Amino acid sequence: MFESAELGHVVDKQTFKTEVAKLREELLEAQYELRKQGSFPVIILISGVDGAGKGETIHDLHEWLDPRFISTQAFSEPSDEEAERPFMWRYWRVLPPKGRIAIFAGSWYSQPITLRINGEIDDASFNQRVDQFNRFESMLTNEGGLILKFWFHLSREGQTKRLQALADNPRTAWRVTRDSWESVKTYDKLQEVAKQLLRMTNTAWSPWMVIEGTDDRYRSLSVGKILLSALRQRLANNQERHYPVAPPFHHTIGTLDVLTALDLSKAIPKDEYSLRLSQAQWRLSELARSPEFKKRSLILAFEGWDAAGKGSGIRRLFAALDARYCQIIPISAPTEEELAQPYLWRFWRHIPRNGRITVFDRTWYGRVLVERVEGYCSENDWLRAYAEINDFEYDLVSSGAVIVKFWLQISKDEQLRRFENRESIPFKRHKISEEDWRNREKWDEYHRAVCDMVERTSTGIVPWTLVEADDKYFARVKILETVCNRLEESLMDRTCRPEAEVKTAAPACQKPVAASGKAKSGIKPIQDESP
Amino acid sequence: MFESAELGHVVDKQTFKTEVAKLREELLEAQYELRKQGSFPVIILISGVDGAGKGETIHDLHEWLDPRFISTQAFSEPSDEEAERPFMWRYWRVLPPKGRIAIFAGSWYSQPITLRINGEIDDASFNQRVDQFNRFESMLTNEGGLILKFWFHLSREGQTKRLQALADNPRTAWRVTRDSWESVKTYDKLQEVAKQLLRMTNTAWSPWMVIEGTDDRYRSLSVGKILLSALRQRLANNQERHYPVAPPFHHTIGTLDVLTALDLSKAIPKDEYSLRLSQAQWRLSELARSPEFKKRSLILAFEGWDAAGKGSGIRRLFAALDARYCQIIPISAPTEEELAQPYLWRFWRHIPRNGRITVFDRTWYGRVLVERVEGYCSENDWLRAYAEINDFEYDLVSSGAVIVKFWLQISKDEQLRRFENRESIPFKRHKISEEDWRNREKWDEYHRAVCDMVERTSTGIVPWTLVEADDKYFARVKILETVCNRLEESLMDRTCRPEAEVKTAAPACQKPVAASGKAKSGIKPIQDESP
Repeated sequence: MFESAELGHVVDKQTFKTEVAKLREELLEAQYELRKQGSFPVIILISGVDGAGKGETIHDLHEWLDPRFISTQAFSEPSDEEAERPFMWRYWRVLPPKGRIAIFAGSWYSQPITLRINGEIDDASFNQRVDQFNRFESMLTNEGGLILKFWFHLSREGQTKRLQALADNPRTAWRVTRDSWESVKTYDKLQEVAKQLLRMTNTAWSPWMVIEGTDDRYRSLSVGKILLSALRQRLANNQERHYPVAPPFHHTIGTLDVLTALDLSKAIPKDEYSLRLSQAQWRLSELARSPEFKKRSLILAFEGWDAAGKGSGIRRLFAALDARYCQIIPISAPTEEELAQPYLWRFWRHIPRNGRITVFDRTWYGRVLVERVEGYCSENDWLRAYAEINDFEYDLVSSGAVIVKFWLQISKDEQLRRFENRESIPFKRHKISEEDWRNREKWDEYHRAVCDMVERTSTGIVPWTLVEADDKYFARVKILETVCNRLEESLMDRTCRPEAEVKTAAPACQKPVAASGKAKSGIKPIQDESP
Repeated sequence: MFESAELGHVVDKQTFKTEVAKLREELLEAQYELRKQGSFPVIILISGVDGAGKGETIHDLHEWLDPRFISTQAFSEPSDEEAERPFMWRYWRVLPPKGRIAIFAGSWYSQPITLRINGEIDDASFNQRVDQFNRFESMLTNEGGLILKFWFHLSREGQTKRLQALADNPRTAWRVTRDSWESVKTYDKLQEVAKQLLRMTNTAWSPWMVIEGTDDRYRSLSVGKILLSALRQRLANNQERHYPVAPPFHHTIGTLDVLTALDLSKAIPKDEYSLRLSQAQWRLSELARSPEFKKRSLILAFEGWDAAGKGSGIRRLFAALDARYCQIIPISAPTEEELAQPYLWRFWRHIPRNGRITVFDRTWYGRVLVERVEGYCSENDWLRAYAEINDFEYDLVSSGAVIVKFWLQISKDEQLRRFENRESIPFKRHKISEEDWRNREKWDEYHRAVCDMVERTSTGIVPWTLVEADDKYFARVKILETVCNRLEESLMDRTCRPEAEVKTAAPACQKPVAASGKAKSGIKPIQDESP
């Protein structure tokens, strides 16, 4: 794998000077065109052996390009805000928008490499992590990102020689640290890990380019030329990538599916509602205040038909929580900053820290619902989204987040009743728009999209909870009790992630015990405004 | 000050029920109108005596309003990312955009109150901090923000009684902590500090509203009604505020001003340039790597005529720095997210952490330059901006940032030469646009704006450095050497903030000593492409 990077490539001074003069002009032109088109971001990863000239080449790239539109990101110890979120969050937050270039010095590969060399993770964990990167890069590529991964290589002798040369020069001596010499001792181990890594992550969509690091001029010129040709190729032909996806095969015989199977006649009387709601609110408020929750976070995702009661369900939930640690994120059209990023970016930016709760009122599933049905993205895009979303949720769960996601199901007749009701009450009128009526016309298409979504994304770690919502009381109680059950389960046993089936049945009912006195302000029983 | 909040205000249950039913509808209407207009943000601060019901009222507000478009922010210990930036940064980053409501539980007032009660800061420091808040709130108000500050009061007996009642109820007992009982002991001290605080911050633009906290219903209803009437008033009449500003009086006799006084014939020969540049780059790279800099940050602000050489100056600077710890932020038209915030927000978001460097290619001074001249903001807006910008820079410097700001001055003839030159060289053609030619026609207006800017914002802590830039060599050396001198000064003596004059003279020249050998890769001497 590294054979061709130990051949002693050298570029002489004169050649370098001539070539660089031309390369700079061409790179500037390409960078300008990239900014003008603003159609994709460029992500450059620079990894490799210590002393192989990563810093020097990054420096040269900044010198050759317009440094105002390129940034370099370095990652040392995670800040506390980073440490309390998924491993990838610190990378998500600094991805370049379309039209710009970012260099990642080190990148997501650094930490697992170090851990593996030190024997702190085993082979399987290493492979699992690396697989996660492949999926992430695949998603970035499919979202249009141009990823260039460079591995700077040195032979064992080459490394010692370069480090010695740096140490001997008073102007560069500071760059040779104790860690540098440590890296000489672990050279063989790194080679072993690197070969495994490169083999696994040499994907068709973003393979590694191994560069011999001995000669400064050769190394930088190689990287510059590769960057130029990648930019040019992509700028000339930025058509949509054709990711291989399998269409959904609908093999339904009869009309039974996960939605039609729901018993929408489920209902509970008002006093049972009041009692169970207030009990569940009390339970939730206790759970959210428990010491165990200080090391976890909670993400609640709401999807459902227009007027299915998402808003009122969320309000009952919120009433049980401390507003200071809970955010509701209503999802509408993306902003221009969000449009310049992968579609998940607008959710990444709202991921809660530990001890915090985020409620998404509509979610990343918009990709496979509204965007699919309305044709806002290509079939390719929404078909690959299922797996990408599963990966995203896996990242969240791995970092300790508890995710509960709801689909609120109502019948077409019930929706009509609620629409008409909204139009007749002055202060509810703003809750209904032309768009709601238009969406209603596409009922069957949405229905199919929901079934596909549940089929492909109701995973063991994050199952969908389908809520029979024709009766608001029933729906709200089911939402509250489900959140309590899932949160309680997760707090009790961190390692427990049962590969459960889609939860369509109402959760086990809490034994209705007499409420001990009226709940006080912190968790007042809800004054219900609905009939 | 608190007399009217010790009268024993009570609202009975029935009145509350009737009033709240009406209030909710009206609040929802107002909130909907706020979202629709999207013309201003609402910032609600809730402070006061422990146990006076802050949490309950915040809870009620979330219940009455649509909780999706209101958020509550709580602040405990600053995260490490917050601790390394100005005190206000954690508040800046969570300000609501136009059309939304944010509640600050505690807010910027909490920390100085606590410090003062504990005697950790003296009276003068307390007053100084409080004055800073007044200025900040004044800026927010002038930017259109609606600020409502509530102080929840309890008499000494009232506090003890409420805490006891909370502690006695098993459902609320958890809310009474050791800190709560501590606060009883410091009741008198808090009252004293609070009276001073309220007196000083009862500004015309955002006075405090003192609310008696004894009765839950009275307190929440009062806050809700005030919020409603403030919202309605503002929604009905959202015309531009008329902040009292003094116009600039130009009393120039003759043509001498800070720009015409510059000697644009200053120049240095190429070999002196090469030597001094490489020396300064070496010095800068040493300073940026010094242990002292790990606790400071560096902000470089560049303004100047089109084609004055900002870009090439920045490139020479950047060449001396480690790209991993340095970001260049090019400022062009604001994004929609930026437009929904105060004009300084787009700069707040790029403030560097300690040990990092941010270079702004055009800056917050756009407000008093291009926005003034092109009429993108009102005269009121740019006239108040001088003081707001000085406050902003003061905040930065107080947190340990070193700021160096440059105006690059060229003659009108030299600009013409450079424009024509750009148009004739293919890879420079994208650097010149119609807009540049249009700006040139307004030379005199810009000239006056620059003079006003220097007069009003060249402060002792952050003076302007005016750079004679007709000769590129001279300009680049002056920029580099100024950065080195200012950084060195600041790192040597943190407390040293000389009330210096505007630095128009070239900085004291470093004794040109023979460079000890060629600089190596990390700080290569710049290959100069200009004649």
